[in-house]
Amino acid sequence: MCRANNLELVMADHAGFCFGVKRAVDAICDALKENNNKNKEVWTIGLPIHNPQEVERLKAMGLKVANSVNEIPENAKVLIRAHGEPLSVLNELKLKGAEVVDTTCPFVSRAQGLAADLSKQGYYIILLGDKNHPEIQGILGHVIDSNAAAVIKDDQEAKSLKILNNKAALISQTTQQEGMLAAAAGVLVSKFRELHVCNTICKATAERQEAVRALAEDSLNNKLDGMVLIGGKASANTGKLRDIAVNGGLEVLWIEDAVELEENAGWFKNKSKIGIAAGASTPEWLIKEICSKIVLI
Amino acid sequence: MCRANNLELVMADHAGFCFGVKRAVDAICDALKENNNKNKEVWTIGLPIHNPQEVERLKAMGLKVANSVNEIPENAKVLIRAHGEPLSVLNELKLKGAEVVDTTCPFVSRAQGLAADLSKQGYYIILLGDKNHPEIQGILGHVIDSNAAAVIKDDQEAKSLKILNNKAALISQTTQQEGMLAAAAGVLVSKFRELHVCNTICKATAERQEAVRALAEDSLNNKLDGMVLIGGKASANTGKLRDIAVNGGLEVLWIEDAVELEENAGWFKNKSKIGIAAGASTPEWLIKEICSKIVLI
Repeated sequence: MCRANNLELVMADHAGFCFGVKRAVDAICDALKENNNKNKEVWTIGLPIHNPQEVERLKAMGLKVANSVNEIPENAKVLIRAHGEPLSVLNELKLKGAEVVDTTCPFVSRAQGLAADLSKQGYYIILLGDKNHPEIQGILGHVIDSNAAAVIKDDQEAKSLKILNNKAALISQTTQQEGMLAAAAGVLVSKFRELHVCNTICKATAERQEAVRALAEDSLNNKLDGMVLIGGKASANTGKLRDIAVNGGLEVLWIEDAVELEENAGWFKNKSKIGIAAGASTPEWLIKEICSKIVLI
Repeated sequence: MCRANNLELVMADHAGFCFGVKRAVDAICDALKENNNKNKEVWTIGLPIHNPQEVERLKAMGLKVANSVNEIPENAKVLIRAHGEPLSVLNELKLKGAEVVDTTCPFVSRAQGLAADLSKQGYYIILLGDKNHPEIQGILGHVIDSNAAAVIKDDQEAKSLKILNNKAALISQTTQQEGMLAAAAGVLVSKFRELHVCNTICKATAERQEAVRALAEDSLNNKLDGMVLIGGKASANTGKLRDIAVNGGLEVLWIEDAVELEENAGWFKNKSKIGIAAGASTPEWLIKEICSKIVLI
């Protein structure tokens, strides 16, 4: 808890970079420093994390970001981001002679491995998550038979899933909420004779979600007037923190950076105590910067 | 639909003996006829089905019922009932030199096989059902390591289950309701990293349950004044039919035989149209007998 002027800030117990993102960003920084005076460029495919401010910092250090594997030049050093990549991309990089540093989050690697193993064993693979999210695209890209796989976003979509097999495996995006995994499993149990449910939800995500839930639950006792959520608008896990806070009755201001903070200065009017939370892709320096500016509003 | 006097009866779409019970009872009858003039006695361990009237009929044909495997004489013919038996009982019968006819319901056999296979693979086995029911005792008796197994009766008991393993398998009693399996799976998903849910619920049970649900749902349109449920009071699946009907708003009269029907003659006062349902262990002759007597009340 920190206090300045009239505004009191209550930090969520867990906020900002999770283990997997920190590990990936540290590896990118190390690669950039190491290659500083060499000709070997350091690339990622797609944005390394869903935080524009941190991406800008890494780009300023020399990071090149390709839109797809086709844009990667020959013999580059390529950092596989925490979200992971489909097997096809890893194979293409091999063919290009790229030096690959795989910083796929170990929790995502586990989900990829389960998708590969269970599809080899003949299970129909059902991924629970956002079909456009790179993590889900990456896990899907480890399934042996892409015709025996589907992505569902929730229990409603589970209901309309066609049954193509007696045995199915349900694997979740690591940022998924456990309640949704339970709801989807509940629906699928009656559709398949055997359903292998893989709880691939990352503890760090759950911890951040629990911390926001605790803030919301204590908000009356604690006299919280709202919560500032710091994180990229494209960050799935940050979006889920917003949902939890709103469902818990908290008024939420979701901002990406200090500019957005200033644009929303009016939000703080008549507020004396607010919670602070941040997504798993939000760097500590940005949380500190925002906190130091909030108390000056 | 049949009508006599002033009372109209609406039969549930599925009622009475399921495939597994019919198969087991037919095998007992065949064995009794075959051994009619021989010295080899025909035994079951425990009541062959949860219907006292049908048990009396079989006993009258010569069936002997042991309370436990210890009571079985040497060289007897032993019919394993539809509920199945633990491996230990089957082994003991072998040692006694019994001629064993296994009429375990194939759906129960599947659950036993899954319990054996998955426990061999290191899964902690969780059975969803009534821990005192012979079917659950039989499935439990196929688990390799009895220390790595538990029986839960519902999702509430799932919540208090201690986590002793990363991987668990959830196997249901064949007469379980799918909604309860889904609820238990939903709870266990957050307790185990991998949860293998085996939907071992028998379709015949679901069909009988759906038929009662349909009667209850149509009861207003159809102007049903209540439902007579025919089945043994010890029959788990009949008990579930009662719950479904009561939850669906139907007034239920649960009777085992014609004597009970007459004792409850007052129940029919001011009723002009009633549904008829029967558990999976209720023989057709008993349903017919009850129906013919109801219309004379």
